[in-house]
Amino acid sequence: MLPPKQTLSKPQTRLDLERIKSAVPRISPVFRDTPQYACPALGDALDCEVIVKLETANPVRCFKGRGAETVMARLTDNPGPKSAVCASVGNLGLALAYSGQSRGISVTVVAGATANPYKLERIRASGATVRIVDGDFDDARHLARQMADSEGAFLVEDSENLDTCEGAGTIGLELIEHGDPIDAVLIALGGGALATGVGYAFKCLAPTVEIVCAQPKGAPAMALSWRAKSVVETDRTDTIADGVAGRRPIPAVLDDLLAVADHVPLVEEHSIIAGMRMLYRHAGLIVEPSAALGVAAMLEDRSRYRGKRVVTIICGSNVIATDFEKWVIKQDDDISL
Amino acid sequence: MLPPKQTLSKPQTRLDLERIKSAVPRISPVFRDTPQYACPALGDALDCEVIVKLETANPVRCFKGRGAETVMARLTDNPGPKSAVCASVGNLGLALAYSGQSRGISVTVVAGATANPYKLERIRASGATVRIVDGDFDDARHLARQMADSEGAFLVEDSENLDTCEGAGTIGLELIEHGDPIDAVLIALGGGALATGVGYAFKCLAPTVEIVCAQPKGAPAMALSWRAKSVVETDRTDTIADGVAGRRPIPAVLDDLLAVADHVPLVEEHSIIAGMRMLYRHAGLIVEPSAALGVAAMLEDRSRYRGKRVVTIICGSNVIATDFEKWVIKQDDDISL
Repeated sequence: MLPPKQTLSKPQTRLDLERIKSAVPRISPVFRDTPQYACPALGDALDCEVIVKLETANPVRCFKGRGAETVMARLTDNPGPKSAVCASVGNLGLALAYSGQSRGISVTVVAGATANPYKLERIRASGATVRIVDGDFDDARHLARQMADSEGAFLVEDSENLDTCEGAGTIGLELIEHGDPIDAVLIALGGGALATGVGYAFKCLAPTVEIVCAQPKGAPAMALSWRAKSVVETDRTDTIADGVAGRRPIPAVLDDLLAVADHVPLVEEHSIIAGMRMLYRHAGLIVEPSAALGVAAMLEDRSRYRGKRVVTIICGSNVIATDFEKWVIKQDDDISL
Repeated sequence: MLPPKQTLSKPQTRLDLERIKSAVPRISPVFRDTPQYACPALGDALDCEVIVKLETANPVRCFKGRGAETVMARLTDNPGPKSAVCASVGNLGLALAYSGQSRGISVTVVAGATANPYKLERIRASGATVRIVDGDFDDARHLARQMADSEGAFLVEDSENLDTCEGAGTIGLELIEHGDPIDAVLIALGGGALATGVGYAFKCLAPTVEIVCAQPKGAPAMALSWRAKSVVETDRTDTIADGVAGRRPIPAVLDDLLAVADHVPLVEEHSIIAGMRMLYRHAGLIVEPSAALGVAAMLEDRSRYRGKRVVTIICGSNVIATDFEKWVIKQDDDISL
């Protein structure tokens, strides 16, 4: 049950509001104070007011720069390892590579064989070392942990590492500081850093805002875990939303999510594509599939949002042009959306 | 001849640096402090460092909100007309409609018959009245002037009205305040508001930065006028870059441009399309043709920019999806750019 609206009691999670606030100045301005604006044409198409929080207009084209900067600032400021390793389907690796290069910290990125090749190319171009493992994201995670143990590098475990969550939480601070009333925030749910970070900021400072965390039906582990209130693993993932495709939720992150998420819909692949198409046609935005999860959730449950003021966080635009065209443009000539 | 690099002498134009600075707080924050960031993939493709100044992440998807807000603040603050009329191929009209609606000022937009229908639909949705004239932009301008005379509305003549130039000039302030060194700024040249505004800010505060104003060969009136140092009119325009297609440069604006522009290239249509394609593929940006003029100029003169740090202002993304696809995606399957 939600707390009474008057109460600003902090939810019990690993996150801390003061740490989120203290992350702000550690993050390069290029990742902060991102655009947040009404998209009238998109709102007309969805029968509500849609506010876009745009996390793609930066050198790594996704929100992960906030968490990566928070991690790297800690490595720079504190004694301990001056190199980092992570498993990443791409965006965290890209962000760590960028932040590492700007701070002189060497970064190794371990990726599964199915990782987005465009992202891997950009990671290499940013000076990081890439290691490909024969397997998926969770196999890459296993190897990254081994490498950290054997080589003494700092392991950045996305979502488990609090800096990645609290860096993402600064998005929530910006949305709240903006001051305009919001009914709901739609957040892509993968490992949980974005959802737990943004959700925590809202639950602390604006607890009446509904926190909606959308995940693909083809990669439902965290959503199923949230519903079961205990970790549910899956055997495989089957979604175009590579940025949120995990099979093994981290128990501590699930606990954090349980404390802040109000609604966790699972959406169909065709809704993700329809969401990408609407963002392209009505907002002029190229987005990667994960970034369309919010609009996908709205399309599958229009009445829930009708007439409301809804924020959707556009968390990444790292999509290969040929994939974008295959999904969004060439597959369907229906222009009616 | 350019002044010596040490001198910060103000160029002699109609613009004023203090007025540009005073415009800043009059402009809604939704149009200010826009993203400016390096685009490594685009830079790699163009052999230089490309900084994008993104003016599309706002409710009107273009830079014109800055000028419109400056105009509307003046109408609100001062005695005189509380309604406005403009001729616009779309973006200024859209921005004035938005600003008028938010301030309770009625707006009439006069458009030529060839105006972008998507933009006109959005103008109507923002509560402005649209009048279509049988002719092009310059015919619309003529009717708007007549309506202002007969109805007492404030005529917003893009580029001639100083608020439109000085509002645009705030982009220059932001680029300069950012502090990073810049070798050149590439600006779309149409009627001249953007070029004279941004150019003036640089010539006052950072005069060693090269001001490059790019215009389509198919709508070259202002560029030819700049080269001739006197107004050259053309009979027609033939370009997909509807946002910059004028035939009759305004003499006072030409004088302002002569004082600040260092280089005024005319670019081919196929370069504009190639520029749009590069921004789409390497930066994940949907842009309207005018916003690709800078990249088009770089493509036609690569050696001029090689190894340099170049800003390109992405001035608008109001393009119909079917046009974007026709130009950028379906026309050419070559993915090598």
